[in-house]
Amino acid sequence: MTRQIKLGAFLPGGGQHVAAWRHPDSPADGATNFEFHKQLALTAERGLFDAYFLADGLAVAFGGGMEGGNAKVAGFEPVTLFAALAPLTKSISFIATASTTYEEPYNIARKFASLDLISDGRVGWNVVTTATEAAARNFNLDHQHPHAFRYARAREHVEVVKKLWDSFEDDVFIRDKESGVFFDTTKVHYADHEGEHFKVRGPLNVSRSRQGHPVIVQAGQSEDGRALAAATAEVIFTAHQRLDTAQEFYRDIKARAAANGRSPEHVLIMPGVSPFVGRTEAEAREKYDRLTSLILEEDGIALLNGLTGGTLDLNGYDLDGPLPPAPPTEGMKSRQTLIRQIADENNFTIRQLYQWVASARGHYTIVGSAEQVADQLQEWFENEAADGFNILPPWLPTALDDFVDLVIPELQRRGLFRRAYEGTTLRENLGLPFPVNRHAVAHETVQAAE
Amino acid sequence: MTRQIKLGAFLPGGGQHVAAWRHPDSPADGATNFEFHKQLALTAERGLFDAYFLADGLAVAFGGGMEGGNAKVAGFEPVTLFAALAPLTKSISFIATASTTYEEPYNIARKFASLDLISDGRVGWNVVTTATEAAARNFNLDHQHPHAFRYARAREHVEVVKKLWDSFEDDVFIRDKESGVFFDTTKVHYADHEGEHFKVRGPLNVSRSRQGHPVIVQAGQSEDGRALAAATAEVIFTAHQRLDTAQEFYRDIKARAAANGRSPEHVLIMPGVSPFVGRTEAEAREKYDRLTSLILEEDGIALLNGLTGGTLDLNGYDLDGPLPPAPPTEGMKSRQTLIRQIADENNFTIRQLYQWVASARGHYTIVGSAEQVADQLQEWFENEAADGFNILPPWLPTALDDFVDLVIPELQRRGLFRRAYEGTTLRENLGLPFPVNRHAVAHETVQAAE
Repeated sequence: MTRQIKLGAFLPGGGQHVAAWRHPDSPADGATNFEFHKQLALTAERGLFDAYFLADGLAVAFGGGMEGGNAKVAGFEPVTLFAALAPLTKSISFIATASTTYEEPYNIARKFASLDLISDGRVGWNVVTTATEAAARNFNLDHQHPHAFRYARAREHVEVVKKLWDSFEDDVFIRDKESGVFFDTTKVHYADHEGEHFKVRGPLNVSRSRQGHPVIVQAGQSEDGRALAAATAEVIFTAHQRLDTAQEFYRDIKARAAANGRSPEHVLIMPGVSPFVGRTEAEAREKYDRLTSLILEEDGIALLNGLTGGTLDLNGYDLDGPLPPAPPTEGMKSRQTLIRQIADENNFTIRQLYQWVASARGHYTIVGSAEQVADQLQEWFENEAADGFNILPPWLPTALDDFVDLVIPELQRRGLFRRAYEGTTLRENLGLPFPVNRHAVAHETVQAAE
Repeated sequence: MTRQIKLGAFLPGGGQHVAAWRHPDSPADGATNFEFHKQLALTAERGLFDAYFLADGLAVAFGGGMEGGNAKVAGFEPVTLFAALAPLTKSISFIATASTTYEEPYNIARKFASLDLISDGRVGWNVVTTATEAAARNFNLDHQHPHAFRYARAREHVEVVKKLWDSFEDDVFIRDKESGVFFDTTKVHYADHEGEHFKVRGPLNVSRSRQGHPVIVQAGQSEDGRALAAATAEVIFTAHQRLDTAQEFYRDIKARAAANGRSPEHVLIMPGVSPFVGRTEAEAREKYDRLTSLILEEDGIALLNGLTGGTLDLNGYDLDGPLPPAPPTEGMKSRQTLIRQIADENNFTIRQLYQWVASARGHYTIVGSAEQVADQLQEWFENEAADGFNILPPWLPTALDDFVDLVIPELQRRGLFRRAYEGTTLRENLGLPFPVNRHAVAHETVQAAE
């Protein structure tokens, strides 16, 4: 079968762009409006997106201090939200973010396995280590753990979760009312994990869904992040402004995956893209300018502060002057580097910088007609920069509608995107392999021989 | 308004009784069948139950070792399950169990607040400390924490969660698109908690639902448990076999609540009841005998072992002889005492004991016609033993249908139960007060004066 683009949709109810909620088309209460999230899920499903994707943080997303908060100040926890959306949809999947630093493997394994059963195999876990000081202070710490510690813990955490997901073999349940035998005791397994960070006996008290395991998603850009992603991730969310850096990342990850003994085509690279789509380029540009004009200065400053891990105090600086220097921190290293790189390469003032990152937060922004957007996606897809994209509509619902109504048909015309879901699980739609239970060795041998 | 019975429904998809899944009416895969849980929720809503209630454990519910598991060996995590059921229902609420020992306050506060928003105020949190050794071994421990430690931590945990739930005042959101002011920064509050067990800064990143806080539910029977319940719980789930012990508990908790400065009518005592209902007493007895006949000996033994915290090794004992002695443990102290008391008072053999506790696990079992069941409930309700009941249908769905179709109309005829939901939130239906935000002092003063 021809290789086709995979698509995720980032749809926080408050909108992606810092001023999204001020857009006339957006419900001002979108962030905490469940019915609105339902509408977004149904639109994304109409557009045949692989997954509805949500980022997450374990603290209020203030830019810094209490000021500068926006529509993201409060919202839903992704797993509970997606559990509520799952029965209201049929084919679209859900990728929820959860933290290996502040949640125990048993609890993470359990809630994702439960959501995977409820949705009948339409779930992914976006593994994050949670980089903010604010989150650390919500979990008994004064400061966050060092970057290297978080990534080492993350790696072991994912290992434990995957062991727990294999607690029950797929044919464990006998359920013979006559004999009273409910399950085959030889097909339930302890994890018996003892590592540097965790000691977890198992078994998990949730059985596997039809897709075996939820899909593992990761977004590492740093050295530690790339190593983790290449070792464990099946989908990698990434942020690039230019084809050449996207290609460098793509080739690096595929090579690392191969070095880990993994099949490179089972590690899907999906850069984030923030599209302003019009029927013409001029119309798209108008949409961009309109949303940009809605950014308050303090929100722009808070955004830059937040994106650089809360270390960039811009008070007193001329917004129409250059970005001041700041020391690196233990926080979101790669994101800090990227933001500074955007400023340097474009020779942006502080104001121009926050205007540019306001929608995509460092991801690739495309302003153009459906054909122009499709051209860009196709170029990246066909030149070892992307296996698909995570679409970040700048405001909601209109920018999502624009993508579904204008860009999706164009991609379909070019044979680059599906006209119907290929399968019923996230793995089937993404073309990812079914993870045979590690305890089902005999079974695996039989499958491999077929 | 006349005081009326409040009703919760315990509806684990695998059924309450150890042999429930073997019943001809029950789906053998009920425990992991989402559609079946949806059916149960809709039936309970048709019966005007206040809440769908689920217990929870953080380990596989083996009776002991790998043997003797039953339909409860694997199932859904309650919060994800209830999130999925919330949009499919309108009026019934959901009480999910979660552990103060193995989850952090920020995560618990968040998932319940999120579920409360999704369901528009139809949520309760059943606070448990999680007593099993098996759970401890899933969370980096070799043995569980001592009983007193768990309860001290639980008390502080609930305090932190309630502080976090007050992070946003109810009128915090301005959402003025024109000015760009999304919220009133003076109405978002840090928790700034520093205690013996937790250090949590806040704010929580979820705002309050229409009912303010999820309802706090507890099930403590031990001295520590009663103290915690009287201090924090708004609904208390309890297990009694006899009117006199239920009355002792009822009066004790109400007195303790008053001593804590709380209004006793805002602490609802709801004993568990396992009803076998027939159109006649004989028909009910037949139903009881039929289900009892389906218990396998090994499941009965495993059940007793599980109920006594995994310490009661009955291998080698005559099932038609008496229960051997066992030392008390740090586990479920009150449940161990209760099980032994049932055996002693009834002079039960091991077999008779497991047959009796197979459906209700120490709760009150009533076998009779709708009138007889209603008589019993009425007696407890009118004599300071209960404000309502948690109904544990022994098998599903039929025993729930029986209760809804036969007992509910009888209670309604007697004026003891609602004919329509009084409100739209769990608090409104239970008649519990709205928790004014602790930071909204001026607001509170105005309300109190009205």
